[in-house]
Amino acid sequence: MSASRSDGTIRAGIVGGTGYTGAELLRLLAQHPAVELVAITSRGVAGTPVDRLFTSLRGRVGLSFVEPSAAHLERCDVVFFSTPHGVAMSQARELLAAGVRVIDLSADFRLRDAAEFERWYKIPHACPELLGEAVYGLPETARDAIKRARIIAMPGCYPTSVLLGLLPLVQLEKEHDGDHSGGRGRAIDWHALIADCKSGVSGAGRKAELDLLAAEVSDNFRAYGLAGHRHHPEIEQQLRAATGRSVQLTFVPHLVPMIRGIHSTIYVRLEAASDQDLQQVYARFYRDEPFVDVMPAGSCPDTRSVRGSNVARIAVHRSSGNLAIVLVVEDNLVKGAAGQAVQAMNIAFGQPETEGLTQIALIP
Amino acid sequence: MSASRSDGTIRAGIVGGTGYTGAELLRLLAQHPAVELVAITSRGVAGTPVDRLFTSLRGRVGLSFVEPSAAHLERCDVVFFSTPHGVAMSQARELLAAGVRVIDLSADFRLRDAAEFERWYKIPHACPELLGEAVYGLPETARDAIKRARIIAMPGCYPTSVLLGLLPLVQLEKEHDGDHSGGRGRAIDWHALIADCKSGVSGAGRKAELDLLAAEVSDNFRAYGLAGHRHHPEIEQQLRAATGRSVQLTFVPHLVPMIRGIHSTIYVRLEAASDQDLQQVYARFYRDEPFVDVMPAGSCPDTRSVRGSNVARIAVHRSSGNLAIVLVVEDNLVKGAAGQAVQAMNIAFGQPETEGLTQIALIP
Amino acid sequence: MSASRSDGTIRAGIVGGTGYTGAELLRLLAQHPAVELVAITSRGVAGTPVDRLFTSLRGRVGLSFVEPSAAHLERCDVVFFSTPHGVAMSQARELLAAGVRVIDLSADFRLRDAAEFERWYKIPHACPELLGEAVYGLPETARDAIKRARIIAMPGCYPTSVLLGLLPLVQLEKEHDGDHSGGRGRAIDWHALIADCKSGVSGAGRKAELDLLAAEVSDNFRAYGLAGHRHHPEIEQQLRAATGRSVQLTFVPHLVPMIRGIHSTIYVRLEAASDQDLQQVYARFYRDEPFVDVMPAGSCPDTRSVRGSNVARIAVHRSSGNLAIVLVVEDNLVKGAAGQAVQAMNIAFGQPETEGLTQIALIP
Amino acid sequence: MSASRSDGTIRAGIVGGTGYTGAELLRLLAQHPAVELVAITSRGVAGTPVDRLFTSLRGRVGLSFVEPSAAHLERCDVVFFSTPHGVAMSQARELLAAGVRVIDLSADFRLRDAAEFERWYKIPHACPELLGEAVYGLPETARDAIKRARIIAMPGCYPTSVLLGLLPLVQLEKEHDGDHSGGRGRAIDWHALIADCKSGVSGAGRKAELDLLAAEVSDNFRAYGLAGHRHHPEIEQQLRAATGRSVQLTFVPHLVPMIRGIHSTIYVRLEAASDQDLQQVYARFYRDEPFVDVMPAGSCPDTRSVRGSNVARIAVHRSSGNLAIVLVVEDNLVKGAAGQAVQAMNIAFGQPETEGLTQIALIP
Repeated sequence: MSASRSDGTIRAGIVGGTGYTGAELLRLLAQHPAVELVAITSRGVAGTPVDRLFTSLRGRVGLSFVEPSAAHLERCDVVFFSTPHGVAMSQARELLAAGVRVIDLSADFRLRDAAEFERWYKIPHACPELLGEAVYGLPETARDAIKRARIIAMPGCYPTSVLLGLLPLVQLEKEHDGDHSGGRGRAIDWHALIADCKSGVSGAGRKAELDLLAAEVSDNFRAYGLAGHRHHPEIEQQLRAATGRSVQLTFVPHLVPMIRGIHSTIYVRLEAASDQDLQQVYARFYRDEPFVDVMPAGSCPDTRSVRGSNVARIAVHRSSGNLAIVLVVEDNLVKGAAGQAVQAMNIAFGQPETEGLTQIALIP
Repeated sequence: MSASRSDGTIRAGIVGGTGYTGAELLRLLAQHPAVELVAITSRGVAGTPVDRLFTSLRGRVGLSFVEPSAAHLERCDVVFFSTPHGVAMSQARELLAAGVRVIDLSADFRLRDAAEFERWYKIPHACPELLGEAVYGLPETARDAIKRARIIAMPGCYPTSVLLGLLPLVQLEKEHDGDHSGGRGRAIDWHALIADCKSGVSGAGRKAELDLLAAEVSDNFRAYGLAGHRHHPEIEQQLRAATGRSVQLTFVPHLVPMIRGIHSTIYVRLEAASDQDLQQVYARFYRDEPFVDVMPAGSCPDTRSVRGSNVARIAVHRSSGNLAIVLVVEDNLVKGAAGQAVQAMNIAFGQPETEGLTQIALIP
Repeated sequence: MSASRSDGTIRAGIVGGTGYTGAELLRLLAQHPAVELVAITSRGVAGTPVDRLFTSLRGRVGLSFVEPSAAHLERCDVVFFSTPHGVAMSQARELLAAGVRVIDLSADFRLRDAAEFERWYKIPHACPELLGEAVYGLPETARDAIKRARIIAMPGCYPTSVLLGLLPLVQLEKEHDGDHSGGRGRAIDWHALIADCKSGVSGAGRKAELDLLAAEVSDNFRAYGLAGHRHHPEIEQQLRAATGRSVQLTFVPHLVPMIRGIHSTIYVRLEAASDQDLQQVYARFYRDEPFVDVMPAGSCPDTRSVRGSNVARIAVHRSSGNLAIVLVVEDNLVKGAAGQAVQAMNIAFGQPETEGLTQIALIP
Repeated sequence: MSASRSDGTIRAGIVGGTGYTGAELLRLLAQHPAVELVAITSRGVAGTPVDRLFTSLRGRVGLSFVEPSAAHLERCDVVFFSTPHGVAMSQARELLAAGVRVIDLSADFRLRDAAEFERWYKIPHACPELLGEAVYGLPETARDAIKRARIIAMPGCYPTSVLLGLLPLVQLEKEHDGDHSGGRGRAIDWHALIADCKSGVSGAGRKAELDLLAAEVSDNFRAYGLAGHRHHPEIEQQLRAATGRSVQLTFVPHLVPMIRGIHSTIYVRLEAASDQDLQQVYARFYRDEPFVDVMPAGSCPDTRSVRGSNVARIAVHRSSGNLAIVLVVEDNLVKGAAGQAVQAMNIAFGQPETEGLTQIALIP
């Protein structure tokens, strides 16, 4: 399996570089001291210099987009897929065979059950045999697995924020189980979870759709996806795996008239956990994490405090009705996508985890 | 008590016309066929023509702001207070004595309990003896009382949206009580209410504060007020009164980078009501209401669909976890403030309820 | 030629009602006391209720979109075209033959020279013989012609603002010519005109294009169209006609991250006119116009002061370098399109010119 | 005079760190490999940790704001002033005496003539004797002077963009003078310059003013400052100095509803220069500049292409009327303020000029 070269360089390729996640990968990889960007593919604009599409990259990325067939991605140490679902799974086998690691920012390897994938994504899975080995690449829970992984399935933007918001409570539940195996019942009511999530419009991708026009989105706010959102089964799958319990999550995403940022407001009914000092629980859980910042008690983090950065910030509150209210902010394109993918790459190739990811958020 | 003049004209005064609610009252009253605007007061800018402050009113409002003492508000049939709390209660007695009706858009007469008012607003109430007669002016619940009222306390912007979202369930609970007095328990779990509310920035008023600057608010999203928001006791009071039960609401307001609009996402745990067709319940409840629009099943109303209009739109959904999810949008300055106040005035003075309030929302 | 019915009703049809100009026509006509909306066509969404596309029209417009062939537009007194160029000219002859007046919001009848039309719009003109009778429907210059017109070509959004900004100087030039026919030369240097124009994104229409996405437009500003914009020949044509001179205009449009509004900053080199009191010139010229507001000296009108209203506001300044700087704001969808079209309809049908157009701008 | 320490570290202080320019200096200096941030002062919030005011700096800046008197700025190698005018000039003498270099982002040392300073800023200049030695710190024209300077007056945000847009034409004029000293007259009409500039709202600073509220600025556009803007004399001074001629500039700033970014559209009347290939002139002039990017012919740079970066992008066009139209974009807080100040610091202390300034712009 590929490691970084003897000179420490990681040769990286990108499949699907014309969307916002691809653009963000380009921004981060172009500034990463250990990465050599080798190829970037696009069917639609092959031949176009990358910096003609993204003016911000003038003088920083000299590549042109190439046809997938001409990209020779087997030369790479790692290939990132920032594509719609369906592409990564069609190319993964070949790349793995060539010893290339795959970091997939699409949904192809997130769900472990091919049938569930097919139910939500409406296409058959092209390589169900690989689902078992794919690692769900949330570094805060899977650091060791990522080191050894050949395929890393990067979490969706919403799942990243919701999972980061709930992981300390998962831990609390486990400790509670350990303490009270004879016991007092659950710490948390895992069937009453509510995630009221709000996302900037870049989360919908760079797609020419009427609903995403500036004149539609600006000065406007709405919910969407109540009939079922593809990030829903992904969150529940990860919570089930982490808690070893069945879970039930009500997930309502909303569209915010801003470019970047996710704010998840998570409501959790406390049962046995109701006497815990949640501030301590969260602070302790994330004490050593480089990219998760537990805010002081009483805080309300704003999305701009992470704009352009790989940090997620979390605050935990209590309501009178025995609820924990967890507020999580992240930049959906960084910690929610490209940044977390680079973080996973750093881990996988034995680089310092924060390398190339230390940009401070842009305020104002 | 004042009625409209023999010529059908309502002589109206405004106290505090320099904020956003005041500006919106001016916009609506200047276009109202039955209203003659008599005086508008402001301590800060007395002497300034109204249309110098609000260019949009050039050619439409010829008044200048006057000192409160010089306004001779006793000439009015109705006086609107669009002031910070504390002003209306200091002038109400005198106006009532002069036979003037008071429509208060501030918080002075919303809470029926003077002690609760003082706890939340940190000042003593100036006329607790009037709290009993003040009518909480949500037309959808208090139409008859408004007709007879001398003091109308207009609901806050958040409470309007949350109450409109919950009233059909209150009705459901009552019918349930009636049917099953021996019975099966509650239709709704009134202790597990969650209102996750999102407001545009005009809701914070026209105040020179750093937190409200465009460079702070734009491209940003955050929660606020988790330590306690003044609209919280108001909502609970009204729900208690309507249901005859104790209630417990978790209320989390958020600030959206847009100018106008509130979107409330309300989570309600269904108990005995879980087998009800909620779409029918809502459609039936609001069938005859001119300003509440129950959307078709499956809808997600957007705030811009009510921008500048007095309409609230509501959609009701079900989640797998036996929750009702109620989505409510309103323009916080119209149905959430000035428009609803004009609606109450129309009712109080026997005008057609929709008069002067038929503007269609501005899209895009 | 069609006049309003004996009952005073104007039966109106709309061809192309799914764009922003169409939506705005719907908003205005639905509130117009003398208009009965008879049919609205769309190839793409025929059969769909209008209020499913535009939620804001729920309860206000009961029509569904129909196929053009099924619309029976010959029943109408007037048909509005809010279509891309090429449509109105293909249907105009037939409608005129049926006695229907045509108000075209597209570009088909704006340029009087078929060859120039073809140069800019890249298609042959379908009825060049009608170009001669079409009236360029800027009410402030063509009120009498509009009364008698069968085809009214509504000005583009940019041309409306630039022409309104320059008309008083055209008048000044004419008076100067009259006074000094032997003469001192020109009042104005008509070859040094510069119009630096800024438009909100709704001006680009409701089109699914990447460049118009919220994530592209928000928090961003740029010029466009420097290689040639179709509104350029239209402005020059009207100025040539009005002044009887050759003119040369530098026209640079820019895209503003807002929904509605045009702000034109016009730079005019004064020659013999340099000793004129321009404030007086402008105030006098527009004294009796219901929809042009000349601001007090020293003003900087903002676009929101006309948001949703049919008013244009103008301020005129002088720079040290003998330049007049004219600032013009309008709502591109109202005075720049649908509102002005309704104004022209009112004139054409002998209604009060302001009928249905008195909405006050939405601030904030 | 202070150079960097033997270990290569530059000890930096900031006076006035609570505004947007201060926040941006903090962002850049915290990431600068050669800078040690020693002290940051604020009268208003002394004692407050920097990262409580700017959440984005949590974990990155450990300092608290201190009273100016307690800051011991004489320990620093360089002190940045990001203050309103009037502060830097009151502290400069003392710092210079202690061997500290002063980089002033305010206006105190921009104008070389104390009388002109006093005319525009309405206060007497506290150290007119230092105006002569202060270097106007636009690196593209003053690199050598900056190396030796004790006081560097950083250009204003608008002047940076306008000057960068005009410098190649200044050079052209000089070459023209050299070629045709007997001559054909000027290359450029230096009395007909027009700069139509558009700025995001962060340019107005972090001040609690009604005009800067989100509800006032959003979805709105307006000009301002036509009666005279303080950046006007600064631009004219620099152009006079550069060309050795008198100049006359019409300067009209506008406020854009976005956070960061300036777009200057500059209109220049060409005289003898009218036969020049301006694209070549610009490309050649900026060939070796690390932070000025001349775009390909026909381009329209957008402000977001430089958001958060120190790059200015320029495109030059020709209009039919013998005008050059120069489009310049910059991030007003980076190349227009803090970034350019760090660039000047790098030059002054012999560091690589791009050090700490290589962040790629944030798109989208």
